Amino acid sequence: MPNEKRTVFFISDSTAITAETLGHSLMAQFDHVQFHQFTLPFVDSAEKAMEAISIINEIAKITETKPIVFSTLVNAEIRQIIKNCNCIFFDSIDTFLTPLEKELDMPSSKMVGSYHKFKDNVYDVRMDAVNYALGHDDGMTMKNFDMADVILVGVSRTGKTPTCVYLALQFGIFAANYPLTEENFANKDRKHIASLTLFKEKLFGLTINPARLQKIRSERWPNSRYASLAQCQTEISMAEELFAAEDIPFINVTMMSVEEIAAHILQFKKLQRRLFS
Amino acid sequence: MPNEKRTVFFISDSTAITAETLGHSLMAQFDHVQFHQFTLPFVDSAEKAMEAISIINEIAKITETKPIVFSTLVNAEIRQIIKNCNCIFFDSIDTFLTPLEKELDMPSSKMVGSYHKFKDNVYDVRMDAVNYALGHDDGMTMKNFDMADVILVGVSRTGKTPTCVYLALQFGIFAANYPLTEENFANKDRKHIASLTLFKEKLFGLTINPARLQKIRSERWPNSRYASLAQCQTEISMAEELFAAEDIPFINVTMMSVEEIAAHILQFKKLQRRLFS
Repeated sequence: MPNEKRTVFFISDSTAITAETLGHSLMAQFDHVQFHQFTLPFVDSAEKAMEAISIINEIAKITETKPIVFSTLVNAEIRQIIKNCNCIFFDSIDTFLTPLEKELDMPSSKMVGSYHKFKDNVYDVRMDAVNYALGHDDGMTMKNFDMADVILVGVSRTGKTPTCVYLALQFGIFAANYPLTEENFANKDRKHIASLTLFKEKLFGLTINPARLQKIRSERWPNSRYASLAQCQTEISMAEELFAAEDIPFINVTMMSVEEIAAHILQFKKLQRRLFS
Repeated sequence: MPNEKRTVFFISDSTAITAETLGHSLMAQFDHVQFHQFTLPFVDSAEKAMEAISIINEIAKITETKPIVFSTLVNAEIRQIIKNCNCIFFDSIDTFLTPLEKELDMPSSKMVGSYHKFKDNVYDVRMDAVNYALGHDDGMTMKNFDMADVILVGVSRTGKTPTCVYLALQFGIFAANYPLTEENFANKDRKHIASLTLFKEKLFGLTINPARLQKIRSERWPNSRYASLAQCQTEISMAEELFAAEDIPFINVTMMSVEEIAAHILQFKKLQRRLFS
């Protein structure tokens, strides 16, 4: 099948994150289409809507194809302006909000951006969780490990840091991480490992296929001992032996995105998210 | 209007992030409903679907109300199982994928979780951006500031750190931040400020209303000089004078979420996102 090209717009009166998320999940179902993407956030006035349609109509003219528009525009007037331009319009507000109003038997507030409206509590929880993740990254300290919801352990470059930061930002989860290094294992009294296992019920292991780890490490430190397949194999074996010996639950992240790793951790550890935005 | 309670499920064969994002944006339009939320990710077999419906049906029985289900289930068979249980079913795949197939004139791949499928490039970009944000947080160094896509400046507790981390994780943007402290301003030769303005075209300012800043700072350091209204006012005045003098674009984040701040920065600085997942 030949590669096709299509232009896609994500339009919202707010950040356009919902439009992007929904749009991407649908676009990912079409491997053979190359999508050119434009995000138009904060389209919250008729003037801005007119600007938006001039761009959309121009692209339609140049490409001789109607651009696809994913919209979460809440304002009906603005929505109508965009809907009538030279585009294919996918509307997640009209499509779902009307039946939801019917089901809940009440009108919706039709508040623009109310999803992301500022909430004191959200700000604080998020700040605290992000600061916690940053302050407990890569084994810098075990202080306050008792405050952690989860402590990720794994060898270097298994995705511990981005996963902790994602858990903090997205869910308000307090996530620390601690690297399993050859030194930690080699240490005669294995004091770091011993300290770590004091928090056993909070530990969650990340492992990865050695060949993939070699590739990741080689990107940054090519031809180093650290990036060699032998070293990757040794470290991963030691990590997986620890997981088995200490009964630490773990997942293999070789084929996983940060979002997937985070979702698995939440599910497995039955963690209650503190943020819903 | 009396507060109503409704139970909501987010169900997906993958992480359920899309279902959650869409669901939250719709739920936020109903102020008077208290939603109890459950996320069921990775429902990728008939067995797991049966488990899910036993939970949904149980809740329906207890609450004597049909739970609302936001689904991004791609597998038609699994979708059918859930759809037939005792629930109100909102289906963003069936609703949008079929018209999208028609418009693109090709079948979708119907690949479960293909949105979040692992991509080498995504992993690297994200790791590099997150590491950059963590390595250039809170003025720890100006080294490699030339690599930044944007450098956020503002007084302490204006949301610089979570915004940088969010820009990195969500968009692959290299974002550094540098705090505007009283010391930096008081310093006779203002060397930090002077160094900072060398990167003027990358700077973006965050400001906030003094009363709000006082509240945020007081949460953590009550009754401190740092959290006093006078101190907050002084620092913010100095920061805003700097923005004006150096022609640094800025926004007032008082009523903004991290998502909104990030979306404004992308738009204003015309930054190209490196990540689309």
